[in-house]
Amino acid sequence: MSKPQSKDLKHLLSQEAVSRNNSPLKSAFRYFKQPGMTFLGGGLPLADYFPFDKITADVPTPGFANGIGAQITDADKTVIEIYKRAAKNKEENKDIELARSLQYGFTEGQPEITDFLKTHTDMIHKVPYADWDLIASVGNTESWDATLRTFVTRGDSILVEEYSFSSALETVQAQGVNTIPVQMDEYGLIPEALSSLLDQWVGPKPKLLYTICTGQNPTGSCLSIERRKAIYALAVKHDFIIVEDEPYYFLQMEPYTTDKASRGGKHVHSHEEFISALVPSFLSLDVEGRVIRLDSFSKVLAPGLRFGWIVGQATLLERFVRLHEVSIQCPSGVTQSLTNGLLQRWGQSGYLDWLIGLRAEYTHKRDVAIDAVAQYFPQDVVTFVPPVAGMFFTTTIDASKHPKFKEFGEDPLKVETAIYEQGIKQGCLMIPGSWFKSEGKSDPPQKELPENSSHKTHIFFRGTYAAVPLDALEHGLEKFGKAIKIEYGLE
Amino acid sequence: MSKPQSKDLKHLLSQEAVSRNNSPLKSAFRYFKQPGMTFLGGGLPLADYFPFDKITADVPTPGFANGIGAQITDADKTVIEIYKRAAKNKEENKDIELARSLQYGFTEGQPEITDFLKTHTDMIHKVPYADWDLIASVGNTESWDATLRTFVTRGDSILVEEYSFSSALETVQAQGVNTIPVQMDEYGLIPEALSSLLDQWVGPKPKLLYTICTGQNPTGSCLSIERRKAIYALAVKHDFIIVEDEPYYFLQMEPYTTDKASRGGKHVHSHEEFISALVPSFLSLDVEGRVIRLDSFSKVLAPGLRFGWIVGQATLLERFVRLHEVSIQCPSGVTQSLTNGLLQRWGQSGYLDWLIGLRAEYTHKRDVAIDAVAQYFPQDVVTFVPPVAGMFFTTTIDASKHPKFKEFGEDPLKVETAIYEQGIKQGCLMIPGSWFKSEGKSDPPQKELPENSSHKTHIFFRGTYAAVPLDALEHGLEKFGKAIKIEYGLE
Repeated sequence: MSKPQSKDLKHLLSQEAVSRNNSPLKSAFRYFKQPGMTFLGGGLPLADYFPFDKITADVPTPGFANGIGAQITDADKTVIEIYKRAAKNKEENKDIELARSLQYGFTEGQPEITDFLKTHTDMIHKVPYADWDLIASVGNTESWDATLRTFVTRGDSILVEEYSFSSALETVQAQGVNTIPVQMDEYGLIPEALSSLLDQWVGPKPKLLYTICTGQNPTGSCLSIERRKAIYALAVKHDFIIVEDEPYYFLQMEPYTTDKASRGGKHVHSHEEFISALVPSFLSLDVEGRVIRLDSFSKVLAPGLRFGWIVGQATLLERFVRLHEVSIQCPSGVTQSLTNGLLQRWGQSGYLDWLIGLRAEYTHKRDVAIDAVAQYFPQDVVTFVPPVAGMFFTTTIDASKHPKFKEFGEDPLKVETAIYEQGIKQGCLMIPGSWFKSEGKSDPPQKELPENSSHKTHIFFRGTYAAVPLDALEHGLEKFGKAIKIEYGLE
Repeated sequence: MSKPQSKDLKHLLSQEAVSRNNSPLKSAFRYFKQPGMTFLGGGLPLADYFPFDKITADVPTPGFANGIGAQITDADKTVIEIYKRAAKNKEENKDIELARSLQYGFTEGQPEITDFLKTHTDMIHKVPYADWDLIASVGNTESWDATLRTFVTRGDSILVEEYSFSSALETVQAQGVNTIPVQMDEYGLIPEALSSLLDQWVGPKPKLLYTICTGQNPTGSCLSIERRKAIYALAVKHDFIIVEDEPYYFLQMEPYTTDKASRGGKHVHSHEEFISALVPSFLSLDVEGRVIRLDSFSKVLAPGLRFGWIVGQATLLERFVRLHEVSIQCPSGVTQSLTNGLLQRWGQSGYLDWLIGLRAEYTHKRDVAIDAVAQYFPQDVVTFVPPVAGMFFTTTIDASKHPKFKEFGEDPLKVETAIYEQGIKQGCLMIPGSWFKSEGKSDPPQKELPENSSHKTHIFFRGTYAAVPLDALEHGLEKFGKAIKIEYGLE
């Protein structure tokens, strides 16, 4: 059965994306490799002058029997060797020689690595339309900046989660774009809130929705398939792009259980089990080509690789490539040669082994964090939903029960500040939820949903189980629990 | 004698740069390394999960006795080894461990590499004011994009060279910014043309001048110190920023001579000789802090490193850093660890040896190209100025002498197209000069200088001696010479 083609959405492009011209120089480059042609058209240095003759990397060998965090030993070490000239590379059909990766070119990303990622993407997301594509970026922060430049113009509005990653919001605001917060609960965006917001909308509609739908930052929530379907239907109805920023997608975990004995047995084993346990992405629902998916190695391999990729319909991605040609050009060639070297040696199967290993690690870290929150935080003022994805957990605190709530003029933010500062005093820092609050105007102003009235009495803090070793994590949460108890006169 | 402080130029910032807020999250990060603090504030993955345990690179050892393009042998090979943990690194005080370079952070660039570049910059440019600084970028294309976002807003005007790098011009135009061409001759920008343009200016003045002043793209010209001084004085008078885009700065060469016997003896030998032979940069004249210098490893090490740096006054660079935090974040950590590893092992002295080697290579390539142009191009219709910097040479052709000039309606561009196509037919591609023509409006419209009246009768082609080996270069130019001769009925 052949897949449908995407819908024409060029009317959603920004003024900048529309006005970007192709360089006449590009027309000359079609003669670059023509036999018999002496091409004196481009300022490319000779690869002879690249001082790097060979680079290597030591990486672990699948299936990572001792866990993905174990120190590599000689027994499980794979050595990647990339030479300047392809002829010397052992896997010459799959490796990217330095003479190419260290040269200009391939704004879309080197074909070996983007081909690997396309196969991976189709395996995971089974993209339901035909003309999808994938291009490289230097990470999701840059992908998001490029997405804004491609779709919005100063004065436009976009939809964002009520609480969202503050750097992502700053990117928008500095570009003079209005952010409309969409209400959410502990399970993420509320489709009914989005629907009523858009039904009443006056003036030009928002061009896109920005969502970190899996392991949301800051709330740690994971949007259910039912909500994703409802929101996708709204995107079709109201003609907007969904930008799913998904660095945490593969940090999905086993559901939390207090039954410690049953924990070990629950990890997924086969690749099929692993893939089917993942929450379906917006991309996997996208029959029209109106999802822009931002993916990255930052959370699954390493942030400093500065390699991300953008998935979407080819026609729209072409505008991203034109932007990248006159901005980042492409990710680092050293990053590409080494990361591709790793992926080619691991294969699709070994990469899934790695992601399964990551799932086990994060499940364990999450369990330790939630166990500690349950043990050390005062349960009469604190509630929490154990996250099933991402690096973050949140603890919601009833500010109205704080002894000074009246004295604080019933302002929950004052309680938040008091707890934050007491946390620092006790030696543990978690981030106040209000720091992530989206600001923006909608016309007409939104009505607060009944579910959201808790804002007047409740606050939350974002913590992470990602960044610290397990013993420090538990001890830190004990200290933060103590800070809350002190504030509430419970200690 | 202490250096002066820079002038306050914040009034020249763009709407975007002014409106960019600092993240509240940054205020929390000052507790990141505080002793006794459990920092649960950031979504940083553990370095244990970075799959790269060690990376290495084979590079040549200074002083590059066989030339910088020679194949590395065991005798002159230096092996750089960078481990995940600093304790294993042999030069632990100078190397950047992977646990740091592959992590988030250091938007300004890793301190080891930026410190090296600051020392290098002061050695070469002797920056005449106190509060200058240097930050990393992912190459000059991105640096230029970031510079525009920092200084100009849709509707603003900037000054550009009459012929300029077409990608750089596209970057400007897509941002809705007007480019005012400043007239140039075979020696670059003409200060008198800029002066008269600005003296008659109506309305808000241009905020910056973009110039590729050394080894100009496309003309190959190199701006003299006298013209640089005159232009800097105009920048002070008319209050604009000078952006010097200088990827070719270290591709300065010996003056061309037809006396082949004397060529070998002229190469610079000592570091002092080398530095004093360089044309002074705008940065070296900048007493007020109004120069933004864009530098890069692309032409001196390899483009695929995607590492550039921006030099300017600290107050202005702070706005670039805020932009980079929400766009590129930082250059690839693999690039930084390996390039820094190379620079630390070479040292400032070894790096100068490399640059001196580069000067010798490009001098030789330029000589071969110019010899071939002199030999194969018909001298009665072609003129040229041998370049002293960069990758490009241009040949100016008298279109009015073309047999079909009248038939072409005296349109020199028709002659240009005919020669371009004949070149392709003969098997050599050079780029028509008109492809680099800047477009833009000034009020009042500029008067053409008498020097520039040749536009009505003369065209030029840009070639490069960088990208092809010497034998192909000579043969290619023979073919292009033949193309011109055919067009002019001389063959």
